Amino acid sequence: MRILILGADGYLGWPTAMYFAANGHEVLAVDNYLRRRLARETMSEALLEAPNLQRRAEIFQSLSGHHVDVEILDCTDYRRLSQLFEQFKPEAAIHYAEQPAAPYGMLKWSEASLTLNNNLNATLNLIWAVMEHAPECRIVKLGTMGEYGTPNIDIEEGWLEVEHKGRKQKFLYPRQTGSLYHTTKILDTDLLWFYVRTFGIAVTDLMQGPVYGITTPEADLDDALLPNFHYDDIFGTVLNRFLVQAVAGIPLTVYGKGEQSRGFLDIRDTIRCVELSVLSPAEPGQLRIMNQFTETFSMNKLANRVQRVGNGMGLNVSIDHIDNPRKEPEDHYYNPAHTALLDLGLDPHYLTDEGVATMLEKVLEYRDRIDRTRILPRVRWKQGLSS
Amino acid sequence: MRILILGADGYLGWPTAMYFAANGHEVLAVDNYLRRRLARETMSEALLEAPNLQRRAEIFQSLSGHHVDVEILDCTDYRRLSQLFEQFKPEAAIHYAEQPAAPYGMLKWSEASLTLNNNLNATLNLIWAVMEHAPECRIVKLGTMGEYGTPNIDIEEGWLEVEHKGRKQKFLYPRQTGSLYHTTKILDTDLLWFYVRTFGIAVTDLMQGPVYGITTPEADLDDALLPNFHYDDIFGTVLNRFLVQAVAGIPLTVYGKGEQSRGFLDIRDTIRCVELSVLSPAEPGQLRIMNQFTETFSMNKLANRVQRVGNGMGLNVSIDHIDNPRKEPEDHYYNPAHTALLDLGLDPHYLTDEGVATMLEKVLEYRDRIDRTRILPRVRWKQGLSS
Repeated sequence: MRILILGADGYLGWPTAMYFAANGHEVLAVDNYLRRRLARETMSEALLEAPNLQRRAEIFQSLSGHHVDVEILDCTDYRRLSQLFEQFKPEAAIHYAEQPAAPYGMLKWSEASLTLNNNLNATLNLIWAVMEHAPECRIVKLGTMGEYGTPNIDIEEGWLEVEHKGRKQKFLYPRQTGSLYHTTKILDTDLLWFYVRTFGIAVTDLMQGPVYGITTPEADLDDALLPNFHYDDIFGTVLNRFLVQAVAGIPLTVYGKGEQSRGFLDIRDTIRCVELSVLSPAEPGQLRIMNQFTETFSMNKLANRVQRVGNGMGLNVSIDHIDNPRKEPEDHYYNPAHTALLDLGLDPHYLTDEGVATMLEKVLEYRDRIDRTRILPRVRWKQGLSS
Repeated sequence: MRILILGADGYLGWPTAMYFAANGHEVLAVDNYLRRRLARETMSEALLEAPNLQRRAEIFQSLSGHHVDVEILDCTDYRRLSQLFEQFKPEAAIHYAEQPAAPYGMLKWSEASLTLNNNLNATLNLIWAVMEHAPECRIVKLGTMGEYGTPNIDIEEGWLEVEHKGRKQKFLYPRQTGSLYHTTKILDTDLLWFYVRTFGIAVTDLMQGPVYGITTPEADLDDALLPNFHYDDIFGTVLNRFLVQAVAGIPLTVYGKGEQSRGFLDIRDTIRCVELSVLSPAEPGQLRIMNQFTETFSMNKLANRVQRVGNGMGLNVSIDHIDNPRKEPEDHYYNPAHTALLDLGLDPHYLTDEGVATMLEKVLEYRDRIDRTRILPRVRWKQGLSS
């Protein structure tokens, strides 16, 4: 299949591009390096300096024989995006092309505005490029479990049948979340749903939990092919940050009480979920929403796990409960459904002590590159008002 | 009070500006004439060519003695908007500054993009200008009853208590609507709610139904002060369009079966609702949502009323059911709550035969100005794909 990957320079985008190429698809990888620029501006560079996309594609081809085509393009530029659709005629478009850091979007007006405009325009432009130039193209969009927040009722997969005063209506599951970034993902879902039901495009919206991991079969070919591993407070996800803290001998920083629960998954499962969504696509006129995680942990459980495994490896790991920089419930009900991807054939890589040890060993190889100043929270949710 | 009116050149903005000035407030009227430009580009000019804002303010002052300050400014320009907040320090900001035409946003990518970007950036910028420069300022935002769409359960005022598997959660009422323009209003509400609950700003979001009417006490001082009366298929609201069709001797065009129901209100009630929202403001940290309409009618009932009154005045009014250019249910359950504004003191102007006759007489004065080519639907919801 002809597969377009938007945001292909990202933590998930690049491993996804290699995977589809290795599995015989024709892959066009698109990015504008926005995340790299923002990470540099906020002193949040990844653990490893990844070569640019073209260079990574060359290295990957020389080692594997598989080709990834690269185009440097800003998805908020509709003229260029629609030209690309006209030429490449993708059969599937995987949409990772969003500003991905919740703390970044909470900085000030300019970062909030960039997050809102980048994310919504990328989504709107993708919708229109599909409608105008590739109406058969199936869209696979990365949403987030964060869209749901932490309601006091079970979280279903995308939809909720409501009974009210003796009558019934099925709605998009009501969403309310903890950051502007997550809010843009809610807006994306509403936007997609409008065009899906009005114009009959086919969309899968994957509500993904925090991802962890650094290795995939393709990335393991060479260090230059590893995913961009962010471990800082702005662009890093929580388990990756804990791993780096354990290796660096810094206490694992748990925000507040630590009873916040989230649904997690291994980066290899992200890629498999996206593949399943492409190969068993949504129907025209269907917004298919699937909750993409494999198991839930509280932050305390996750920190304890890293501590236990790290200490078993001779690291000296402690845990610090610090003042929560975010505004979020620290102890809440959490029971999200997640059967749709298992039904499609997902065979999860659950988090094991061996898995944690493997990731710690990988991070240990790059111990010298850890910048200890970027691990404690630098962004507070109230900051927008305080200065 | 110091009252800022964003979108003050609009059908509702200008009468609101005059009303607050006439009632002793210090009014700053802001607009960038976007609606005029779009109306001109789509051959949808209003029935009367209104003088520009400064000129209208001069005429109003010469006739009434009341002053309206005017600033020509694009609310999507954050630098200028925040400077204005710094200088004027508004105590209330009334936000009408959005691209208001549903059919316009359904034209093509460029109109969809303009609608999305104008409306969301105006809202985001207003939120930040308040947070940074006037945190005590109460925001009164015009939403739309259209945000709710036509669910098969009762529509409550903004919020819904959901019981699911034995547990309960109060959510923003789930929204799903019929056009991109209406969808941007849903996104506005989500955006406002995020900043309200995270940063404690005070917002009233008014879910308004279609407005009708051409006269207010201030507008009646001079024809140059009348609201911009759009009667075309793109910028006109339905009852105003029926009035013009009746006067022009064109059959009233009912879309489809005509059993679509909506909640309507008189333009004088819009202004009073906004005043009530300013004078009895939301609390800090509260998103207060009120459903702003006074009575519901189906399109058939409305057309029949105009026909009866028009025929009584010697007009020869017929009704034509035409193919529905929109994608919407034409026969549906509709039971929206609307008590909050009545509780605050709204005393509605209900639609009477005398009221319809008065409006018809006003339109008759301008009979020669009616452009008959812009009354039939020129925009079809599927158009984006068909050409």
